[in-house]
Amino acid sequence: MVVHASAAEMRRWCLERKAEGKSLGFVPTMGALHEGHASLMREAVRANDCAVLSVFVNPAQFAPHEDFDRYPRTWGADLAIAEKAGIQAIYAPKASAMYPPNYATYVQVERLQDGLCSGTRPHFFKGVATVVAKLFNAVPADRAYFGQKDAQQSAIIRRMARDLDFGIEIVEMPIVREADGLAMSSRNVYLSPEERTRALCLSRALFQVEAVMKVGERDAAKIIAAVRKEMANVDIDYIALVDADEMIPRDRIEGKILLAVAAQVGKTRLIDNIKFGNYGQSKPDLRGSAIEVPL
Amino acid sequence: MVVHASAAEMRRWCLERKAEGKSLGFVPTMGALHEGHASLMREAVRANDCAVLSVFVNPAQFAPHEDFDRYPRTWGADLAIAEKAGIQAIYAPKASAMYPPNYATYVQVERLQDGLCSGTRPHFFKGVATVVAKLFNAVPADRAYFGQKDAQQSAIIRRMARDLDFGIEIVEMPIVREADGLAMSSRNVYLSPEERTRALCLSRALFQVEAVMKVGERDAAKIIAAVRKEMANVDIDYIALVDADEMIPRDRIEGKILLAVAAQVGKTRLIDNIKFGNYGQSKPDLRGSAIEVPL
Repeated sequence: MVVHASAAEMRRWCLERKAEGKSLGFVPTMGALHEGHASLMREAVRANDCAVLSVFVNPAQFAPHEDFDRYPRTWGADLAIAEKAGIQAIYAPKASAMYPPNYATYVQVERLQDGLCSGTRPHFFKGVATVVAKLFNAVPADRAYFGQKDAQQSAIIRRMARDLDFGIEIVEMPIVREADGLAMSSRNVYLSPEERTRALCLSRALFQVEAVMKVGERDAAKIIAAVRKEMANVDIDYIALVDADEMIPRDRIEGKILLAVAAQVGKTRLIDNIKFGNYGQSKPDLRGSAIEVPL
Repeated sequence: MVVHASAAEMRRWCLERKAEGKSLGFVPTMGALHEGHASLMREAVRANDCAVLSVFVNPAQFAPHEDFDRYPRTWGADLAIAEKAGIQAIYAPKASAMYPPNYATYVQVERLQDGLCSGTRPHFFKGVATVVAKLFNAVPADRAYFGQKDAQQSAIIRRMARDLDFGIEIVEMPIVREADGLAMSSRNVYLSPEERTRALCLSRALFQVEAVMKVGERDAAKIIAAVRKEMANVDIDYIALVDADEMIPRDRIEGKILLAVAAQVGKTRLIDNIKFGNYGQSKPDLRGSAIEVPL
């Protein structure tokens, strides 16, 4: 496993592999790797001849009051997880190289970047789209892997990859959950035991929607009300039922629908979601996420 | 010479050349090729193993009231000019493929896209940066060639290429002029004989600055006043003395300076410019443009 810090070196490594006729899978991350990331890496290794991981905590997607400084950095453990998954190269640039003096260029995915997480994090997706465009230029892969946990993010990246002609297929993988249902997140380490217990209401609320759907409920307002009731003990940021590609609010569950929730639990912001309909790359998860409910 | 209409095919062609160890030069254009474009193509052919031309009239950089519909399209003549220059592949995508339904992604180069041409064309550079990012993804070249005539554009592209880690060197080539000094432009065909004569005041005004500089003038206000006087018979859009990299207005000529002018001559908008100082890639042009004045 090799580690590259410069975009030019990383790109050269990738182009050498491509010149050998090898396919490349890419897993962009902010490190603090958990089983969710590992599932992306294993799929990248399985479906491609070579797999590249990037580890970069992107300052451009954090607001000044957010957790950039205390975001978990676990480089040693990350290396071990990447090695075990079969990753062949890691791109780990420095922030000063990614954002040199007089940095001025930003990528934005209009409309899709509005709503949901943009309410509390207005500049978040601008930072995400920009850094992923940079990472895609350093790692000219055939396929890139993102988790459904960040569903708005993966819709934005998918649209950006198509619109800007990156020629990279975006693969969205199912949410990986703890045994009790909590969606895995690098931020879960912030939770106190009491908060950890309260946080379970996010996934519980989403799983209950499945039951409501089974008895034929398709009305967004009623579903959102049921979710809101279940999440009474956390500080709800949003509960949104939207078109899964366009992120536009929907009144009824028809077509590809994303039900996404965000809440503050103590000082930690958590997100979770579930998708309905014959949606893109996501596969059924027996533990409850990415459920494909026939309509 | 091959012509590709799809980004995927164009990229495959380029990656095959790169896999053979060949270097790639790229000249992005809107067609209606003239001697200015030909000078870029000849340099791309000279300095690289292979050279690619793109021909795409980009709707995203025209406002509804501008000349998108009547912009000159001269495909047959363009092919002959490209062939003669030694171009090996042309990328000529359709607008419907470049901007498919629900297109949403835009690239912006903040600060540099403000001022100068943005006054009358507020969305112009957003359209330019976006389409060039798309073209760079379809044509992963080693070097891309732009004309100094569009000086704000080439500063924006140079910054974008650096910021987004495209790994493409941006080469700016000197303005090519008609024998009487008029900067070559695809839009010159719009000019009536009377307008064509009046249009000469742009280059004449810039050449006179050279004389003023030689007697030691460094004050921006005085230089701008002299240019304004010379351009009395056209409808001036702007006369700007700015830092040539950052596009920030300067009071005195110190460091790398761009003196840029824009004016409406009849229904045709024309631009021209001159640079001072030890500026980047530009080379002295004996006919008057890109003059390197020692300070």
